[in-house]
Formats: sequence, C-alpha cells, structure tokens
Amino acid sequence: MDEPVLLTGAGGRVGQAILSRLADADEWRLLDREPIPEERRHGVPESETVVADVTDREAVADAVRGCRAVIHLAGDPRPNAPWDSLLANNIDGTQTVFRAAVDAGVEKVVFASSNHAVGAYEEDDRTPEMYRKDDEFRLDGTELPRPSNLYGVSKASGETLGRFYHDHHDLSVACVRIGNLTESHPPKEYERGQAMWLSHRDCAHLFDRCLVADYGYEIVYGISDNDRKYYSITRAKEVLGYEPVDNSAEFTFEAEPKE
Amino acid sequence: MDEPVLLTGAGGRVGQAILSRLADADEWRLLDREPIPEERRHGVPESETVVADVTDREAVADAVRGCRAVIHLAGDPRPNAPWDSLLANNIDGTQTVFRAAVDAGVEKVVFASSNHAVGAYEEDDRTPEMYRKDDEFRLDGTELPRPSNLYGVSKASGETLGRFYHDHHDLSVACVRIGNLTESHPPKEYERGQAMWLSHRDCAHLFDRCLVADYGYEIVYGISDNDRKYYSITRAKEVLGYEPVDNSAEFTFEAEPKE
Repeated sequence: MDEPVLLTGAGGRVGQAILSRLADADEWRLLDREPIPEERRHGVPESETVVADVTDREAVADAVRGCRAVIHLAGDPRPNAPWDSLLANNIDGTQTVFRAAVDAGVEKVVFASSNHAVGAYEEDDRTPEMYRKDDEFRLDGTELPRPSNLYGVSKASGETLGRFYHDHHDLSVACVRIGNLTESHPPKEYERGQAMWLSHRDCAHLFDRCLVADYGYEIVYGISDNDRKYYSITRAKEVLGYEPVDNSAEFTFEAEPKE
Repeated sequence: MDEPVLLTGAGGRVGQAILSRLADADEWRLLDREPIPEERRHGVPESETVVADVTDREAVADAVRGCRAVIHLAGDPRPNAPWDSLLANNIDGTQTVFRAAVDAGVEKVVFASSNHAVGAYEEDDRTPEMYRKDDEFRLDGTELPRPSNLYGVSKASGETLGRFYHDHHDLSVACVRIGNLTESHPPKEYERGQAMWLSHRDCAHLFDRCLVADYGYEIVYGISDNDRKYYSITRAKEVLGYEPVDNSAEFTFEAEPKE
C-alpha cells in the first residue's frame, strides 16, 4: 500500500472538493480540528483521521509521519479574520506543517494559498474591465504579493515559508492561489467571481496534478479556464499538466426578478 | 517644532548608524526594549525615549502618537533566531508597528528588511562569481523573496505587511533590504560581504532619503555603491535620491599573517 497523503483541513470546503473526487485515487490521512463525520470522510477509515489543530506541533508531527505528501489547507479561512488568529493558525500553523513535513522526510507539500494574496492588483482604474474577456491584464505568479487583507498577508507568508523549505530542504512545494471555489456553477452577476471561478472538479484535478507532477517550487493560480480570467493558468498547464474542463462563460444566467 | 520620527530599535546597530549621523537633522523619539544609555541617545532627551517591546501593542500605540514617520528597525536581528522569536518580534511586532502607525495617522513607515529575504538567490552555481565585478547578475527588488533562513522569511513577511498597509491605508512604505553594515571598512577576505557592504554613512544617508522622498511603496537595496554589487541600487537612486559615497572596492587589504 502506498504511503498516504496527509490532507489538513480535510473537513473544509476545499478539502471536500478534493476528497469527494479523489478519495479512491490515493491513500489518505485526514486532519481537521473538528471530528470529520463519516459522510465527509468519503470512505477513508476513521483510523486515518486525526483531530488536531495545526498549531499543535506534536500532533502535526505525529500526523505527518509516514506520509509521502501533504496537501495543507488548514487555517482560518475568513478573509476578514483577526490578525491574532491569522498569525497563529495560518502563519505559525503553516510553518508547523512545513517543518514537520521536512522532519518526517515528506517529499512534497501542496499549500493552499489564495487570490487574496494578490487582491490589491485589482485597482479601481482596472476594474471592472480586468474581469472581462477582452482585457489583457494577467497575473502569472511571478509578481510580488499585494494582499487584499491580512488573510492575504498570511497566505503570502505561507508561500514564502514554502520557498524557504524548498530552497534549503529540497522539498517540492506547490502554492495554489485558489480563486473562487463554488459547486456546480460560477457566482451569478458577479464579474470578479466569474473571472476567478474554480469548479469543484477542476479543483480536485488541479490538486491531483500537484501530487503527481514533478517540480521544485511553484506558485500557480487555481481557477477554471474562464474567458474572463486575469490569472494566467499557463504555468499550471505546463508544469503540472493541469487541464481544466470548466469555464464560467459556459454558464449564462437569466435575469432573476428582484425580491 | 516638527513632529518627531519614531525610531524603533534605536539602540541597535542600524539605529546607531542612523542616529549618530542624523540626530540633529530631525526631531526623534527613540524606542528600544532596553534603556538607551545617554551616549547612545546622541542628544535626544530622555523624555523622548520609550522603553518597550514592539510586541506590546499599547506601548507602541502610545509611542507612535504624534509622530510624522516611523523608522522600524526593532526585531530579533539574529539570522539563526528561533521561529517563535521571529514570529513574535519580527512578524507580529512589525504588524503592531504598521497598525499603530496607520491608527495614529503617520504618513510614512520605513521598514528595515534584510538581504536574508533574498539570500537563496545565491545558488551554488552562481557563487562566488556573482560577488565579482564583472558578473552581471542583479536583484532589483521586483523579484519574489527567496529567504536564506526563517529570519529572512520574517523580513519578507514584514515587506508584505507594508504592501498591505500601503495599498489599503495610503501609508508610504519603503522597505530597505539592508546588506552588510560595518563601520569604517568592508569585511576583509569575504567577497559576499564586500558585494553587499553598506557603510555607516551611506546607511544614514539612505534612511534620511527614505524620510524625505515622496513615494508610495518601495523595496530597495541598502548597500554602498560597491563594484562587486549584485543588488541594483538604481531604484534607490531614482526614487529616493540615494547617492552613496562608499564602495568596498576602494578598500584594499594587505594580506595578514595567519595567527
């Protein structure tokens, strides 16, 4: 049996998008700070489930042991989260996961970064034009962070931690700046959300590619192949073999009566 | 009388390089976690000295009040500092200073970043050639961080915090990636140190320019005009009016007998 992949934040939104589609494709160990009910484990046995906070260094070290890779999603997901929570859960928590992974000889860590790491590129004089099909503005992952909020600062710090652990400990690290993850269809009447839509199936496929592909350190954007995109997905395609099947432009919405 | 400039970490090495040359050029308020002895206050009255840790949010808020600018040097300066100290003193401490500055209506924060934010660009196959005069490799401040160590991660995080406070709170922020600050002459027989040498007088002049010039958000390298440089100082010259007078190449050292 293959060594498992540790999925932190497995009970959360991104974790479920991944696990519901990839549960049978890999061996998994699930970590979440809340117990994960059976219907959200998607067949992963309870014995491979760890209830722990990523700020608990000992518990994380135990959870990582014997894993071949980590997908690190855990953290405070609130864009308006208070700094103290971001400092503990997102910055210190991510350091804890990287450190534990290196100590345990894990080969690869996939880190859930966020569009909020670069949200301030959406300047007033570029919006809403940049959310439209004919606009050519692109971010490609080589640009310096410009966070939307302190949550975005915490995600950019996680990316930099990943860079350090790659450069000095030979860990393969992919940072996925996740766009706007929604099930079944993109947000209606929200151009920005359509620009950065990530469908659940493209999300699962992208994280699967991050587990399978060979790379050193990568920052890629996690969005579907939306006509409206201003995030380049070229790097994800070339290095990871990402082949998204969804595009928010395929969804047209009839005007709904105002309530 | 002008509103003062708050100098955090005033008793430290960079603080003293600045204060010893600029004490009379500005009004100052000094903050350090240790009491600053009179000979290191360079004429700044004790009443304008605050003994506090930058992790003490209330004390920092009090210290910033009424200041027109902040030069933020305080933090754990050890390249091998343990993570917990870096998290508290450098990351949380810098957030505390930026937050307090914005809340107090300060116009400008100059943040002491470090060459360690980008030390991993010095890859084995580039060194020692990149430290030599005829090598054309340059970093210019637009590149993503590649920290040497967790200290460098903490400094990169401080830069990103600065970006956030500039973008969202209209604060002018200059991040100075300080090279190798030594008094009177560059390190002997240490090519890297000569490449990134920053003389005390160039250091004081550069921070003075950061206080005087108009800018939005800048990342600049803080080194003298060394022939061996691999950090570009073009941006510091153009935007800040930095005019370094020193160059490590002017110093030649006779071979010293080995002891």
